[in-house]
Amino acid sequence: MSRIFNFSAGPAALPLPVLKHAQQELLEWRAAGASVMEVSHRSADFIELADAAESNLRKLLQIPDEYEVLFLQGGATNQFALMPLNLAAEDEVIDFVVTGSWGKKAMAEAGKLRRTHLCASGAESGFNAIPKPDQWQSSADPAYIHWTPNETIGGVEFLEPPELPDTVPSVVDMSSTILSRPIDVTRYGAIYAGAQKNIGPAGLTVVIIRRDLLERSPASLPLTFSYKHQAAKDSMLNTPPTFAWYLAGLVFQWLLDLGGLEEMGRRNQAKSQLLYGAIDGSQFYSNPVEVGARSWMNVPFTLAEPQLDKVFLEQAAQAGLMALKGHRSVGGMRASIYNAVPLEAVEALVAFMHEFEKRHA
Amino acid sequence: MSRIFNFSAGPAALPLPVLKHAQQELLEWRAAGASVMEVSHRSADFIELADAAESNLRKLLQIPDEYEVLFLQGGATNQFALMPLNLAAEDEVIDFVVTGSWGKKAMAEAGKLRRTHLCASGAESGFNAIPKPDQWQSSADPAYIHWTPNETIGGVEFLEPPELPDTVPSVVDMSSTILSRPIDVTRYGAIYAGAQKNIGPAGLTVVIIRRDLLERSPASLPLTFSYKHQAAKDSMLNTPPTFAWYLAGLVFQWLLDLGGLEEMGRRNQAKSQLLYGAIDGSQFYSNPVEVGARSWMNVPFTLAEPQLDKVFLEQAAQAGLMALKGHRSVGGMRASIYNAVPLEAVEALVAFMHEFEKRHA
Repeated sequence: MSRIFNFSAGPAALPLPVLKHAQQELLEWRAAGASVMEVSHRSADFIELADAAESNLRKLLQIPDEYEVLFLQGGATNQFALMPLNLAAEDEVIDFVVTGSWGKKAMAEAGKLRRTHLCASGAESGFNAIPKPDQWQSSADPAYIHWTPNETIGGVEFLEPPELPDTVPSVVDMSSTILSRPIDVTRYGAIYAGAQKNIGPAGLTVVIIRRDLLERSPASLPLTFSYKHQAAKDSMLNTPPTFAWYLAGLVFQWLLDLGGLEEMGRRNQAKSQLLYGAIDGSQFYSNPVEVGARSWMNVPFTLAEPQLDKVFLEQAAQAGLMALKGHRSVGGMRASIYNAVPLEAVEALVAFMHEFEKRHA
Repeated sequence: MSRIFNFSAGPAALPLPVLKHAQQELLEWRAAGASVMEVSHRSADFIELADAAESNLRKLLQIPDEYEVLFLQGGATNQFALMPLNLAAEDEVIDFVVTGSWGKKAMAEAGKLRRTHLCASGAESGFNAIPKPDQWQSSADPAYIHWTPNETIGGVEFLEPPELPDTVPSVVDMSSTILSRPIDVTRYGAIYAGAQKNIGPAGLTVVIIRRDLLERSPASLPLTFSYKHQAAKDSMLNTPPTFAWYLAGLVFQWLLDLGGLEEMGRRNQAKSQLLYGAIDGSQFYSNPVEVGARSWMNVPFTLAEPQLDKVFLEQAAQAGLMALKGHRSVGGMRASIYNAVPLEAVEALVAFMHEFEKRHA
């Protein structure tokens, strides 16, 4: 048995040095004489770990002091409900820009709790392009505007955040693009991300939120629903997912050690250019997304003959290239090339695609 | 470095064979060529793992078919809010029996969402006894009655569930007693438990709920709040905490291999009898809980001279006996002796207590 190249959309590949580090100390962490999983979250050792993880994440993303960083549970889907409950009053409206499946879900969930308004949608382009920000139809006084910087299924990404009025906070689901390159956190009111792509294992959700927005949280919210309460308790109002938090800390350290997000961004750009180049340079593979909106992280592509999909997946698996099946709503293939997927994996994929095309085209 | 005896209240000790198993395959799980953390929750391999974990839990607790088993996130504190939202209509009242800190919190959280009624409280006994069920003052037509089979902080446990009318479902927080011995699931409408005591690592919450009660979930609930939606999607409406689920599965297998909950119950009874015996047989240590309500899992005790607490903890740590400090609201000591804490740990603790008493009494 040996490790394969893993193109899973999430839970996704983790950096091998992180897994090895965790493996080595899985039974005895530090001087605790116990696994990190067996240690109280209120112990001095664990609090030090938690603080270091937060501080390294702040360093990586250059998060200013006026933002809180929360380590929560429930995934992005849980935040689809918690963001409206915390940030919009019952009579307020929330604006949504929908560029794919996740944005659509976020809007549907918010719609159970608050009034929502669709500012713009990628539907006209078949969700293969981002509607131009100067054509977004905002509502008069929205609580916030929600958009999805990277759509994991469609592979559509805002390569730059849109220019929007300062008065309306942007709330964004960054699950599949966070930490892939530098961002300007001050452009956002709140950022949330499920961990299982670029942060760590499933079961952890990071929320980065401007402190003044915390004051919108109604006092009547249950404790675990309230970002304000979570912030006041340093994300430990009840037992947090300690092992996931620990692993995220190891991932943050790995990113700092390799040169931070500038370097990670260079690597990710190179990986995605190589793959899109191979697709565009062939008559056999294609990607439907407008060039200026192509995701660096999730690259869907189709074969000229869909009846070859099964053979492609089988032979790719035999070549050690795993989890390439496209999402059922899109079909075809999808290569998710998150931070922990090395250039060699993409090179191997591109070589395989080339060989496969020669055999079957 | 070597592993110590771990009396942490949670996150708590895990079975050593489980940790070793996880360590051994942390980089390459099954034939996947990847860590179990790196595998999609929708892959055939992971779904098989998830199904096996559920089926082993059903075997251990003899859960009948008319109950759903959910693997969720957010801890018991999140269920303090989700139970009222799912099981009580807005005009209904929920009955509470409060026998300690966690019951009190559960009632306070429910009180933000629904009308609550205090049926009975352990306050008169200083929360050292369980109010007699025939004196509970139920309300006329409650949606359900909530109680806490084991109070982790006070160390007060219902050794048998109370006899209650069949018409009102019991909803119980079993976080710190589930899997410690056999229970009759049919006595409950819903059971919930944070994993980080007897199930697995923090970040997983198990809910066992009678199927007919799922029909109470309002369709308007956000997906992640709704037990009904979670059940319909086999707890995978979004990415679940896969590694915690995997580890829980290993714990369930470990329990089956050692003989199931009958055998675990015998071991836990022996451990707790040994420790309470040492406390009661001394003039130096004491436990305030009424004998018929003493927890098998969490044993708080105080020293005759509280100024010796610090020395006790220091010397215990030197002897490899860790995490014995009592909860700040109670003071003194607390030994949590969950399933993964072996008899040898309790023997070592009792021997140390005896020596310490000789030196300081």
